[in-house]
Amino acid sequence: MSWNRFKTHFSHFPELGLSVDISRMNFPDQFLPSMEEPMQKAFSAMEELEKGAIANPDEDRMVGHYWLRNPDLAPSQEIRDAIRQNLQDIKTFVVNIHGGHLEGASGPFAHLLLIGIGGSALGPQLVNQALGHPQRDKIRIHFFDNTDPDGMQTTLAALNGQLGRTLCVVVSKSGSTPETRNGMIEAQAAYATVGLDFARHAIAVTGEGSKLDQLAVEQGWLRRFPMWDWVGGRTSELAGVGLLPAGLQGIDLGGLLDGAAAMDEVTRRRDTQRNPAALLAVMWFYATNGRGDKDMVILPYKDRLALFSKYLQQLIMESLGKEQDLDGQTVNQGIAVYGNKGSTDQHAYIQQLREGVNNFFVTFIEVLRDQVGEPALVEDNFTSGDFLQGFFLGTRSALHDNGRESITLTIDEVSPTSVGMLIALYERAVGLYASLVNINAYHQPGVEAGKKAAATILGLKGRIIEHLQSSTTPLTVEQISAQLGEQANPELVFKLVEHLAANPKRGIAKEGKGDTFDATYRILVQAK
Amino acid sequence: MSWNRFKTHFSHFPELGLSVDISRMNFPDQFLPSMEEPMQKAFSAMEELEKGAIANPDEDRMVGHYWLRNPDLAPSQEIRDAIRQNLQDIKTFVVNIHGGHLEGASGPFAHLLLIGIGGSALGPQLVNQALGHPQRDKIRIHFFDNTDPDGMQTTLAALNGQLGRTLCVVVSKSGSTPETRNGMIEAQAAYATVGLDFARHAIAVTGEGSKLDQLAVEQGWLRRFPMWDWVGGRTSELAGVGLLPAGLQGIDLGGLLDGAAAMDEVTRRRDTQRNPAALLAVMWFYATNGRGDKDMVILPYKDRLALFSKYLQQLIMESLGKEQDLDGQTVNQGIAVYGNKGSTDQHAYIQQLREGVNNFFVTFIEVLRDQVGEPALVEDNFTSGDFLQGFFLGTRSALHDNGRESITLTIDEVSPTSVGMLIALYERAVGLYASLVNINAYHQPGVEAGKKAAATILGLKGRIIEHLQSSTTPLTVEQISAQLGEQANPELVFKLVEHLAANPKRGIAKEGKGDTFDATYRILVQAK
Repeated sequence: MSWNRFKTHFSHFPELGLSVDISRMNFPDQFLPSMEEPMQKAFSAMEELEKGAIANPDEDRMVGHYWLRNPDLAPSQEIRDAIRQNLQDIKTFVVNIHGGHLEGASGPFAHLLLIGIGGSALGPQLVNQALGHPQRDKIRIHFFDNTDPDGMQTTLAALNGQLGRTLCVVVSKSGSTPETRNGMIEAQAAYATVGLDFARHAIAVTGEGSKLDQLAVEQGWLRRFPMWDWVGGRTSELAGVGLLPAGLQGIDLGGLLDGAAAMDEVTRRRDTQRNPAALLAVMWFYATNGRGDKDMVILPYKDRLALFSKYLQQLIMESLGKEQDLDGQTVNQGIAVYGNKGSTDQHAYIQQLREGVNNFFVTFIEVLRDQVGEPALVEDNFTSGDFLQGFFLGTRSALHDNGRESITLTIDEVSPTSVGMLIALYERAVGLYASLVNINAYHQPGVEAGKKAAATILGLKGRIIEHLQSSTTPLTVEQISAQLGEQANPELVFKLVEHLAANPKRGIAKEGKGDTFDATYRILVQAK
Repeated sequence: MSWNRFKTHFSHFPELGLSVDISRMNFPDQFLPSMEEPMQKAFSAMEELEKGAIANPDEDRMVGHYWLRNPDLAPSQEIRDAIRQNLQDIKTFVVNIHGGHLEGASGPFAHLLLIGIGGSALGPQLVNQALGHPQRDKIRIHFFDNTDPDGMQTTLAALNGQLGRTLCVVVSKSGSTPETRNGMIEAQAAYATVGLDFARHAIAVTGEGSKLDQLAVEQGWLRRFPMWDWVGGRTSELAGVGLLPAGLQGIDLGGLLDGAAAMDEVTRRRDTQRNPAALLAVMWFYATNGRGDKDMVILPYKDRLALFSKYLQQLIMESLGKEQDLDGQTVNQGIAVYGNKGSTDQHAYIQQLREGVNNFFVTFIEVLRDQVGEPALVEDNFTSGDFLQGFFLGTRSALHDNGRESITLTIDEVSPTSVGMLIALYERAVGLYASLVNINAYHQPGVEAGKKAAATILGLKGRIIEHLQSSTTPLTVEQISAQLGEQANPELVFKLVEHLAANPKRGIAKEGKGDTFDATYRILVQAK
């Protein structure tokens, strides 16, 4: 690595407190010029999108997450007003909660249970970890982010005795996400069990008129905040989804929004080398040959950013992992993303990154500011933070020496502004890269198949339970399948009855020894 | 998928409460017979290893983690006695702590701060999440698993006012891991700040005679527990590293050990189809062409197992990610591992898995038992757990329909026994796969380069600080580099002074506008 190459490919953005270093990506000199034309097209596509073009043609939707931090850009007065009003409403609500003007049944709110999944949980989880503090937070956040009853019970156990001071925020854009609906029902049951009125503690963040919205109206919930169809779940952190919990926690919403707005401004530049999102997009194209040939490993050297890789996993993989391009060609695009944090991961998988299969490129995230307050010296002149930087630089160098490529992002500190910036940086990089590979980054057609299959499977489970209830004799899997007919393939029946039989309260007994598939199943008591 | 193929490739192990289903891996009929000879060699290599052969030739070490759960197998009376004595010592110590016979300065221990990284943290974190419970745990565990000073301060903030009831367990096999050493020093400082005697709250888990061991003796720590050179960090969960915190938390150590012992027994079978670890190893070989061509995505449908993928990331990637094989040929082996939990991840990246780049195979982990206690019905006949299973089955089917392959492990429940089983299952699968691809799974030569580079870099940082202290004028990066000579390449100097200047308490000021690289740096006050 020459000092000249470093200086050429190290881009500092003083207005953002950000640097992007692509010097350790081994692209040849002609690579960047060769990308100039496609990048110009990508910039144009992005301009159209920001002006309100239908950038998500499959779903006939505008894509407006950039408007959230600069409402002036929104294409209609209605949208501009909605964004501003919602932010004002959230801020007022937060003031009322913090001031104790709105209380739970047992007093001022001290906890928040956020029920949401995917885009309705990952952003809040990222911001909670990146900017929260066990003593300074005004409200402590807990999550239901799955439909695992045991997971929910564990979360509720941590809130034992505190539900009367716990706000429950149910987040679902469509208002009909089953995991979230289930979480809401289990939460309602928990409040009811201790004699509390759930509605008095409940808030909905959802599309106007959705099922969840209607329910909140019917039951008289504390409050409803809107979600708009022009904000995708994976880009909703700076909409109500993320701003409401962050504000309640006590995080500076202005900082988050300003950081994102500043990044948006810089990443609108039509000059790749002066645009950090464009630099990322072209490097992804270089590293993966524009077709996901390599995995993206995200390694922030900072505990607070440990969830950033998980957040990016959704943003990048759900946006880019597409079967068809915009012309209907089969392309099977995407980039696999994983990571956690350094230097911890050096003790986990740097061995493979340095010596093993070279199927990845790393994005290091360096944070210059180590800590607030007086640093402790752990050795001679050195702080723990010096070691952290030393391990980052040492690893980067060791990988480079073995031909493993890396990008380095350097930020001044972890703050609301820099977190807002990072979110906006990757949102735009994803949008630009999607243009480079000619795909729709804003839909997710592939998730429907699994959901539909799940619905069919649940339907079959219901039929099996009813069938066993009406059967006078124990039945084998093959008998149940034959009696239920076509959709009931024996494998599925097997999986479903095994699950029922393993949960004693469901009232289905399994009997029989010998071959696994010869067992019989019968109703013990009225099934639950 | 035919019922017959499913029945043929669904292996149930009733003695373990485990099933392994490889029916959705699309290997041809001749594949398993073709692997018979290499698998027999792998079984033989494993037998030698278990008898005490030097299975880690580079480090001239035996590999003995299997002995931990069946000491009778250990090759010497000394080792057998050491294992048994240590377990007894841990159990006695746990009884004393739980009984309040050993207390902290402010009363019975209620918290445990575990300081360790890599293999000294991932196992304890996995078990803590998989088996812990906010109300039932006898002691609550917190972690320092990095050298991030801000991360440590955040953890300490959560322990504010509780240090007098907090045990501090410092875990480092070598006793000289810098991250862990730094953590210990920051913890000592925190105890001292509130006037507490750290030694009275401190325990070392380390190699006999290590630096840490010596320090613990000198300072009169509460207790020391041994680590042995024949247990690798990534397989140390069932040594003192994992058993001590699990025992203190209140987790059944017998269950963990018995589960692992039972799995060891079954996975010693020289019959691939009746050996779950062998089935995994051959499937990994099939899926990745024996050279890491595909990533391994680990998807447990159970919140408690969300950290299992991170645990496996270390176990698998550090074990298999090797440059050379046992014959010294360059092979760049490995398998990239990532994952989290279902159904949550369906909302994150199933879009890409189903439609995008087909560069992975999934291992689903299904847990039959949904929860302890009465299930709530969230719809008609259905519980949240029915939805969880429905999403798992639906996703598996949707992936299969698009030619994406998967293995399914089914366990009865998440318990100490099943967690011990899972740990042992993957330990053995890794060992067998390593034989198939002819590599040493038990060393990590590639991590040294980064560590050495980090040490050199810290040395340079010290010289820069001294040089600035002695300089009467502000200096540019190029001036510092030139004055310090060879090792001081300007890029490294730039990274180091930027870090110092960003941390005001370090007393180094940066000045200058215009081009980034023209800035000058000077000492403000005595550097810290």
